[in-house]
Amino acid sequence: MSSYNNNTALFAAARRVAIFGGTHGNEMSGVTLANLWAKNSAEIQRKGVETRAFIANPKAVEKCIRYVDTDLNRAFSPENLSSLGGDTLPYEVQRAQEINRIFGPKGSPEAYDVIFDLHNTTSNMGSTLILENSKDSFNLQMMNYIKKAIAPASCLVLLNEHPHLKYSTSRSVAKHPVGLEVGPQPQGVLRSNIFQAMRVILKHALDFIELFNEGMEFPPCTVEVFRVLERIDYPRDANGNIIAMVHPNLQDCDWEPLNPGDPMFQTFDGQTIHYQGPGTVYPTFINEAAYYEKQQAFLTTRREALVASSIRKA
Amino acid sequence: MSSYNNNTALFAAARRVAIFGGTHGNEMSGVTLANLWAKNSAEIQRKGVETRAFIANPKAVEKCIRYVDTDLNRAFSPENLSSLGGDTLPYEVQRAQEINRIFGPKGSPEAYDVIFDLHNTTSNMGSTLILENSKDSFNLQMMNYIKKAIAPASCLVLLNEHPHLKYSTSRSVAKHPVGLEVGPQPQGVLRSNIFQAMRVILKHALDFIELFNEGMEFPPCTVEVFRVLERIDYPRDANGNIIAMVHPNLQDCDWEPLNPGDPMFQTFDGQTIHYQGPGTVYPTFINEAAYYEKQQAFLTTRREALVASSIRKA
Ligand SMILES: [Zn+2]
Ligand SMILES: [Zn+2]
Repeated sequence: MSSYNNNTALFAAARRVAIFGGTHGNEMSGVTLANLWAKNSAEIQRKGVETRAFIANPKAVEKCIRYVDTDLNRAFSPENLSSLGGDTLPYEVQRAQEINRIFGPKGSPEAYDVIFDLHNTTSNMGSTLILENSKDSFNLQMMNYIKKAIAPASCLVLLNEHPHLKYSTSRSVAKHPVGLEVGPQPQGVLRSNIFQAMRVILKHALDFIELFNEGMEFPPCTVEVFRVLERIDYPRDANGNIIAMVHPNLQDCDWEPLNPGDPMFQTFDGQTIHYQGPGTVYPTFINEAAYYEKQQAFLTTRREALVASSIRKA
Repeated sequence: MSSYNNNTALFAAARRVAIFGGTHGNEMSGVTLANLWAKNSAEIQRKGVETRAFIANPKAVEKCIRYVDTDLNRAFSPENLSSLGGDTLPYEVQRAQEINRIFGPKGSPEAYDVIFDLHNTTSNMGSTLILENSKDSFNLQMMNYIKKAIAPASCLVLLNEHPHLKYSTSRSVAKHPVGLEVGPQPQGVLRSNIFQAMRVILKHALDFIELFNEGMEFPPCTVEVFRVLERIDYPRDANGNIIAMVHPNLQDCDWEPLNPGDPMFQTFDGQTIHYQGPGTVYPTFINEAAYYEKQQAFLTTRREALVASSIRKA
């Protein structure tokens, strides 16, 4: 953001926008859309903006796996981006450096204005925008615009600026990083309903950017977000083996309140394990396939209302 | 089957039974049950039967992938089982030979009596028993018993004895091979409802074997099966790239009638492609993740009633 004028935040026009598919190679909505739009970009072009569709992890896409050596969507740390080693580095670290050269450098004035990073989840999360910075009024205004545009369909906002659980995403290269998760969809599967939901959200996001670039002023607004609180692991035995599943009462209930005492896990011998936290939380990423290896059965969040200042092009 | 006595088919007692999990390493219900029962087999033991739980593809299970080199569940052909080469053979071919030594040899009197092979699918197939031979009255009687035992819950029977689409399964090593597919469940995910459905079916299957071994005579019965007719591929362009998705009207509608003229696919630019076959079919394995590489969007089947003769222990 450049400056303020009477409480209106002034941002430079968003002239360079990228849409990443295949940061995870087996999340097929983003892979398919990025491939389609790389071939024919008419649908994603807007007046005064250059939008580029891009396959972030082509080797993983080719094999239809999440990653080859390491998770690309955790690879954009300062250490990785500056590490020497060339061909000897893990594939995704090399690729992160390449992406950083094309769309960054991360944190510099030359970086792309907006990167949309398209993901799918096996969780029943519906359409979820992921925000990395609660102070980014540009992104908050965009998310507010999208939520209104797709109503009565719903699109929630997950805010991850947790000191330990936030990670170095592919999209973090841009000035305004926007994650989009749509589910439920199994890895390696393309479902028409999920594909369509993702496509519509991108349409409205790009419309917002065009309107912003044309000089429209967006008045202050309040956006409901779900702030990441805690990672909950599966119950395990002394050897680290999982001994329980997400409880049927919790499975598929992403974004619904989980209260102290509510069933959370069911052990293989039929015992119920209850949630013991101090108050109501809103679980999400419940039973996501890719998070077994990250020791995460679900994330807890709390609801907050974030206020975005009015914004206008500088 | 040994012989007949007044139209009653006489079979030897089923003394050796195996339960395979992890023929595909990312199908978690079977992997989890086989691991549990390998540690503690009390739940699967029955009077007069020895039941062994077994992880069929441990390397694939460890990596949580379908297979390492080639699909184990297509590897039990006579050529593979007799091919020399030892360590130079693909991992799954080596493993097929090992499984054949332990549980076979396939087609011999020494082979195991029954192998249950546990699978999950991303398709909305519910619980499905897979039968490889329409003349196997032992298996038909078992399936009839299971269907009645779990009612009003449903369990359908898929019959695959198609001259080209039948394949060399892991379970085909046994005298009576029984496949069990339960879905929908994403790869790499364990859902409590799917786990429980699979566990209950195994319980009834083992109960049937115990009753049979004790001398119970099962009277003739009729079993509804869905016979595999045809594999339907995704629409593709001249380069072989997929250009359409399963139509929303067909997605998740496994086992429901598909009539000539019904929507079948939706292209990425929104065109509907209709089913053009000569008559009503019953699709299944709709949008299964693992079948993209096999050029299969779904299988068509037709409903048939198979008659099983009465059976009794010889
Ligand atoms: Zn992802
Ligand atoms: Zn399978």
